[in-house]
Amino acid sequence: MNQVEIVTPKKLIVGSDCFASWIDEAMQASVKKVLVLSVGPIWPMLESSLQAAADKGLKIKKLDYTLPGEPTTDYFDVLRKDASAFAPDLVLGVGGGSVLDVAKLLSALCNRRKSVDKCFGKGLVDKRDILLYCAPTTAGTGSEVSPNAILLDSKDGEKKGIISPFLLPDCTLIDPVFTMSLPAKITAETGMDALCHCIEAYINVHAHPFVDTYALRGIGLVCKNLLKACRDGRNKHARESLALASMLGGLCLGPVNTCGVHALSYGLAGKYHMSHGLANALLLPEVLRFNKPACLARFGAMAKEIGLPYRMDNQQNADAVIDYIQQLSAQCGIPQHLSEIGINKEDIPEMADMAMNVTRLLSNNPREITREDVINIYENIY
Amino acid sequence: MNQVEIVTPKKLIVGSDCFASWIDEAMQASVKKVLVLSVGPIWPMLESSLQAAADKGLKIKKLDYTLPGEPTTDYFDVLRKDASAFAPDLVLGVGGGSVLDVAKLLSALCNRRKSVDKCFGKGLVDKRDILLYCAPTTAGTGSEVSPNAILLDSKDGEKKGIISPFLLPDCTLIDPVFTMSLPAKITAETGMDALCHCIEAYINVHAHPFVDTYALRGIGLVCKNLLKACRDGRNKHARESLALASMLGGLCLGPVNTCGVHALSYGLAGKYHMSHGLANALLLPEVLRFNKPACLARFGAMAKEIGLPYRMDNQQNADAVIDYIQQLSAQCGIPQHLSEIGINKEDIPEMADMAMNVTRLLSNNPREITREDVINIYENIY
Repeated sequence: MNQVEIVTPKKLIVGSDCFASWIDEAMQASVKKVLVLSVGPIWPMLESSLQAAADKGLKIKKLDYTLPGEPTTDYFDVLRKDASAFAPDLVLGVGGGSVLDVAKLLSALCNRRKSVDKCFGKGLVDKRDILLYCAPTTAGTGSEVSPNAILLDSKDGEKKGIISPFLLPDCTLIDPVFTMSLPAKITAETGMDALCHCIEAYINVHAHPFVDTYALRGIGLVCKNLLKACRDGRNKHARESLALASMLGGLCLGPVNTCGVHALSYGLAGKYHMSHGLANALLLPEVLRFNKPACLARFGAMAKEIGLPYRMDNQQNADAVIDYIQQLSAQCGIPQHLSEIGINKEDIPEMADMAMNVTRLLSNNPREITREDVINIYENIY
Repeated sequence: MNQVEIVTPKKLIVGSDCFASWIDEAMQASVKKVLVLSVGPIWPMLESSLQAAADKGLKIKKLDYTLPGEPTTDYFDVLRKDASAFAPDLVLGVGGGSVLDVAKLLSALCNRRKSVDKCFGKGLVDKRDILLYCAPTTAGTGSEVSPNAILLDSKDGEKKGIISPFLLPDCTLIDPVFTMSLPAKITAETGMDALCHCIEAYINVHAHPFVDTYALRGIGLVCKNLLKACRDGRNKHARESLALASMLGGLCLGPVNTCGVHALSYGLAGKYHMSHGLANALLLPEVLRFNKPACLARFGAMAKEIGLPYRMDNQQNADAVIDYIQQLSAQCGIPQHLSEIGINKEDIPEMADMAMNVTRLLSNNPREITREDVINIYENIY
């Protein structure tokens, strides 16, 4: 059994309507000033909670995340300026992956001089003095339980990761109620992202029996509940199951992380500012077909977890799993071809160059991927 | 989805031969003085590591846990005196559940005046200034990842719990290599204890879908590996699987905890100083038979996880699971009757009184248990 290090949020609160607990946590931690980072459609859901916090004497500053798509370093610097001026002792991020990633970085950097682009890589955020609470409002990112934050570098347009145990929240609140009003499109894309986290940890060269526990359960939960939640957003059980799956996927990110799909999706997202979940969903079946020979033995347990008939031949299990995932993705309304989402075929070589730069994730992939392989994969799904 | 709070060790390191990592962790945390608590057969396995630590300038004091059986408050006070005199900045516990429970309490109390019997209950250990690392050498206790410590109160002979988030280690090292030389008897008893943690969390009134992830995987791992490890202690895969199962069981203890089996085992252990795992193993099948009507729907998933043929009728699944567990226990050499281990039948009422005092766990049980029920259960397995 290989060695993994597992570092999780200091406290993880999970349950429907649990979000309100953040106030007690903050009061116990003697917090005075709270910077709340969130986005347009979420603010009304926070109103009563922020009022209750203000009534208890907490000073609240609302910071609105207004960028369409994923955060850039330039945009981070704009928010950082506002945050620094307020000098919070708690940053509370409530939103999808972009909002949470920025909240994590604000808590670590807003009272320091270090430039955010000096933090790209592993371990370069070396402390955090401001408390950090995170509550996801989508079921997919896993950012709320991971030590990772991803930004688009405004200098070169590439997507880059910042990884540090100091980016793990002091308290994470997983409240599925936030996700009940998510549109089907975002539900589908973020759900496929969670599925990618679980599958890419499970077939990873650094896969670990403990982390497999998270990965397999997450795979089953997404596969059994995503279509239900897309078809009926008010299906409480499906929403709760996806919230759990998202957290389970996030718990895979710290100790094992992702591999090929995520690396290739960086290529798409770097060139076209598309949603992270959509990029992953588009790539997942084809990258799995590419990876299949190198991780054939892993598909039996996945088939069982999904509830597919288990076969003695893992080639058959693998094909069944990959077909199932592609069908699920299509049934949830996700496009299956790059051409459908306005990507130019002639950009493929440039996107492949970007993907090949993500060595941090490519080195996790069960099968070696060359630049030619990347081009083939993009072309196969064009 | 009900609300749970999950608090885990700050860092969890899992893998064969990972124990040596404690030195780097301690160096990074600027530790100077380490109190190591362990027991006779373990010390030789620690020798090279303690020497390496001393070579790096760490001052080491070895404290030997010599009590046969579970720790009493009086014995704790003896160890505490030695620990206080050394004034460590790190307590490193390496051993089974008793050793780890004492290490946890030493780190929280050895530099304070508070009497340990003033800490019985929830939340009464309200801080900890000394670092705490734990490494289990059995696969069963789960103490290394739980906020619980259990002592026998020397005043009244009863087994009592101390529960506090400050009893969670700063670093837990799960190294299955320690368990390779465990005798079959201890392997069997501690393995059944881990199984109890998982099953009692899964059928608990406070059961939670996230914690179920740990519980179900743990149930499968114990059931598939315990007999193998008992028959061939050097079976590395079986040992690693049991180490994982033990940790998974321990992760159920904080957010959900155990129920009827553990309450009734306190009755046995209070009157007779028997091993905790043996007491639980003896009780598990019969308490499950008693609980069955109240948690019938939970047996289907357990049957699947164990690898038993899944039936549409949960009554059949329940009977199959309970029979399987009883057979496993017997095959591993565990006695199935109280009379076999020298318990006097006339002590049953007194043991029942002790069990009825464990309201903290009885209130978690899926079916209400009266004093008469407890007496019946003890008599049925006499």
